[in-house]
Amino acid sequence: MRLSSVLPVTEWLSGYSSGNLVNDCIAAVIVTIMLIPQSLAYALLAGLPAEMGLYACILPLIAYALFGSSRTLSVGPVAVVSLMTASAIGSVSAQGVVDYATAATALALLGGVMLVALGLLKFGFVANFLSHPVVSGFITASGIIIALSQLGPLIGISLRGDTLPHLLVGLRVQWEQMHFFTGVIGIACIAFLLFARFHLSRLLIFCGLRQRLASLITRAAPVIIMLIVIPLSAAQDYAALGVPVVGYVPSGMPAFSMPNVSWSLITELAVPAFLIALIGFVESVSVGKTLAAKRRQRIDPNQELIGLGAANVASAFSAGFPVTGGFSRSVVNFDAGADTQMASIFAAAGIGLAALFLTPALFFLPKAVLAATIIVAVLSLIDLDVLRQARRFSLADFAAVALTILITLMAGVELGVLTGVTVSIALHLYQTSAPHFAVVGRVPNSEHYRNVKRHDVMTHSHILSIRVDESLYFANAAYLEEIVFEEVAGKPDLSHVVLMCPAVNRIDLSALDALEEINTRLSEFSITLHLSEVKGPVMDALSRSDFLDHLTGEIFLSQHAAETALLLIEP
Amino acid sequence: MRLSSVLPVTEWLSGYSSGNLVNDCIAAVIVTIMLIPQSLAYALLAGLPAEMGLYACILPLIAYALFGSSRTLSVGPVAVVSLMTASAIGSVSAQGVVDYATAATALALLGGVMLVALGLLKFGFVANFLSHPVVSGFITASGIIIALSQLGPLIGISLRGDTLPHLLVGLRVQWEQMHFFTGVIGIACIAFLLFARFHLSRLLIFCGLRQRLASLITRAAPVIIMLIVIPLSAAQDYAALGVPVVGYVPSGMPAFSMPNVSWSLITELAVPAFLIALIGFVESVSVGKTLAAKRRQRIDPNQELIGLGAANVASAFSAGFPVTGGFSRSVVNFDAGADTQMASIFAAAGIGLAALFLTPALFFLPKAVLAATIIVAVLSLIDLDVLRQARRFSLADFAAVALTILITLMAGVELGVLTGVTVSIALHLYQTSAPHFAVVGRVPNSEHYRNVKRHDVMTHSHILSIRVDESLYFANAAYLEEIVFEEVAGKPDLSHVVLMCPAVNRIDLSALDALEEINTRLSEFSITLHLSEVKGPVMDALSRSDFLDHLTGEIFLSQHAAETALLLIEP
Repeated sequence: MRLSSVLPVTEWLSGYSSGNLVNDCIAAVIVTIMLIPQSLAYALLAGLPAEMGLYACILPLIAYALFGSSRTLSVGPVAVVSLMTASAIGSVSAQGVVDYATAATALALLGGVMLVALGLLKFGFVANFLSHPVVSGFITASGIIIALSQLGPLIGISLRGDTLPHLLVGLRVQWEQMHFFTGVIGIACIAFLLFARFHLSRLLIFCGLRQRLASLITRAAPVIIMLIVIPLSAAQDYAALGVPVVGYVPSGMPAFSMPNVSWSLITELAVPAFLIALIGFVESVSVGKTLAAKRRQRIDPNQELIGLGAANVASAFSAGFPVTGGFSRSVVNFDAGADTQMASIFAAAGIGLAALFLTPALFFLPKAVLAATIIVAVLSLIDLDVLRQARRFSLADFAAVALTILITLMAGVELGVLTGVTVSIALHLYQTSAPHFAVVGRVPNSEHYRNVKRHDVMTHSHILSIRVDESLYFANAAYLEEIVFEEVAGKPDLSHVVLMCPAVNRIDLSALDALEEINTRLSEFSITLHLSEVKGPVMDALSRSDFLDHLTGEIFLSQHAAETALLLIEP
Repeated sequence: MRLSSVLPVTEWLSGYSSGNLVNDCIAAVIVTIMLIPQSLAYALLAGLPAEMGLYACILPLIAYALFGSSRTLSVGPVAVVSLMTASAIGSVSAQGVVDYATAATALALLGGVMLVALGLLKFGFVANFLSHPVVSGFITASGIIIALSQLGPLIGISLRGDTLPHLLVGLRVQWEQMHFFTGVIGIACIAFLLFARFHLSRLLIFCGLRQRLASLITRAAPVIIMLIVIPLSAAQDYAALGVPVVGYVPSGMPAFSMPNVSWSLITELAVPAFLIALIGFVESVSVGKTLAAKRRQRIDPNQELIGLGAANVASAFSAGFPVTGGFSRSVVNFDAGADTQMASIFAAAGIGLAALFLTPALFFLPKAVLAATIIVAVLSLIDLDVLRQARRFSLADFAAVALTILITLMAGVELGVLTGVTVSIALHLYQTSAPHFAVVGRVPNSEHYRNVKRHDVMTHSHILSIRVDESLYFANAAYLEEIVFEEVAGKPDLSHVVLMCPAVNRIDLSALDALEEINTRLSEFSITLHLSEVKGPVMDALSRSDFLDHLTGEIFLSQHAAETALLLIEP
């Protein structure tokens, strides 16, 4: 076991050059600038004090840099995970057991420990249980909920709830209490951010800037707004005008301390912590893969579990909340030219400096500015096209996406993810539980065997050949029995049944029981059972059971060999 | 929609003959004799008053006779379902919300309604989600718990708990309080029942009885014991000697009344009711199938759901508890020559007469006799050989069985079933999440393509052909990407990748995304992606998406056509 397999940091650190240093420094400055408004905004989205957003960007970045396998992934608070955090701790702290911030920290610790454990057990495959359409549907629905929930701070009303009905009712009831000037600031910010997203880059290039610089300035639009609005707010005392501002943010680095976690809190938060960790992991791995592929690097899902787990544990020990690899921040880091995770370490230092020296300025920042930042950011998450695409592709995929979106919107994020996972797995089992079987016959003058319903083929009244088009396992074992006896019924001349198995990749004990049952019951009618074209792994499995001793017939290498032999027995 | 598809009873009633009547009458008498001790014993096992066992054998038998699709299945209380009932209502009534009997009746109602609903929705396939080894493991573990729990009444101590640790601790603590004479009765009964099971039939045949009569008398052994012990107990007043007896059992038919079910009781009992219904259904269908096959009849799983559901609803309306099709009683019914469900209707009448007139005699029956009946009955459920068989067959099946047995013994029946289902599904997904892929080459002088690792085949440095040996879906989509890029890496001359798909039976939207991703990323390296031997359903699915427009290469009917064409492009 080499050190680099535990600490991927050692892999790139040994060859680290001054060229890397320059690139990483530049990327770090740009990422830091972008992270400040983002981390504040997502802390508020999670219902937490603003400074916790900054804390969640210091130690976690360093922990991921040491343990993560992606060179350019940037971790920290992200929108969907922050929404899930708000939802999870809302229900716990409503019961008055612990305060909000303690619950958020506990959530990061629990999720982090789970991720590290999954990583050590090499359980990276669990991410595969979330199908793509379910994840898209979930992120779309979360985006809708986040955007709606931010309408509250955007127009200066207090909007509670994490489901569509709650938010809509809240909006209708409180609509008229909106603070007009706050709303103006909020909507102006949205307008500017949308302009920046769609036109600023072209404008800057038109003004003579290089494309890369123009695109970086575009991405810094939230910071530009802060640089404009904070001085205005301070000079004209927006707070006195009734505009909700971020207010006092304590200066200094987070205290490094053991999170306060009781056993009852653990049992309360275990399920949401697991779901947050899982969704965070799936999102992060997909970003990490995309970026790694562009430079022909690879990421290791199991090492990613450990890296993200370490980041969350670090977050918990420094008064932060759940973090994961974010899409936009990682893309900025990559585009800004980061070579290695050293960029993240520098960015952590940058955020640390901000926590030490910039917090007094944040006092005057209107919350509406941060709400506008979030709304524009999550608009890119909302992709209802996945519904259309799934509808066209298959009813099963459509049902999974539509249900995930519906339940997430109506009953919240946790139930939404659980529904998505359950429905995709159930539909998959349902589909494979009634697989395709075909009665086959020989294509004249050939050794090929094809479906009797689709081709003009030759059959014999005393031989029935059935091709099985799926691996045999518990969900379809009963169906196999049914099919065979349905086909056998009403064929009085039958003396041989051949199961042709070229597409059977796997067989389990339930399916073996079904084969035994078929064999026994056919023998009661004096019909012999044969198999043909059995694959290696299936043959190995059969030979580890008593089935081959009980089988009344034979196993043939090819269907043609089976028919030839059986015709000789009984011409 | 014909009447017979709703009421299978109409199917056989029209052709009912006097010969059928005689056969059904004889079977009914024998089944009634057998059912009396069995139903009393299982009511006590469920922790309920003895008369509820009789009630659960009157209306349910009639309801199943009307709606069930099996001709010879006999429903009523069975061991495993009674244990699950005890476990479920134990936790509810411990909270003091409702009394034990009300909870049991509610459980039958809920389970019955669920079964009927599943049947109407044609959801019979849910039974397939329980793999055979998991069901065997569960029944074995339940059998062990039942046998242990009956040691209490067998030796006159009060033993509580439904897990192995609870029962063992209880036994150790109370062992010395055993009532000696009760223990003597219990152990004598067990000895007689075991003798009856293994030797009585041969002895009777040796004495000149016909085989069928001998085997029926053997099965009536529990009644023979009752006929011996009840008069002894009454004459010598065993109760006064401290032997626990069944005591006062009210005479008369059950009151037909709406079960008392509140909303909070429903939410409390929903999960256990579903699990009981599911296990009951799986057990019952497997018995029904076996018996139907012997007479070349068929049973319809969806109709069975309705039949069993109706039986449970009927049980709930007549003060009974959850019932299902029992193995031993159905076999007795079948062996005694029952032709139709009329036998069950007569048996219901027989039990009704017993409830009216025989209950005074039951007063004197020692509970130890019933405990002995249960212990000997469940011994046949315990089959630890399934562990050995699974161990030999595959690690996945073994893990599922072993965990099911372990969790059922240690943490109870509900968690046991849930673990079994979850583990089998998770293992199935895990296995298919890393399916078999093979790089293939052409067998010289043929059009066959085989694994390069196993055969001596011809390949070309600019063409990579990968055979995919599994349907592609969300659980293995990520793995497909990984495999392709692993194989592509380190092949600088590569210009074509062909995915050979003869064993791909199905593709979902996640896998389509993966193919799109592979296509895009290969094109960045100027490599073209082709598919070959794509099956009809997969081709249909692909053509419902945009994939075919984006695909850089072609789709070939056969792998040989692909290689021939690609060699022409770039010889």
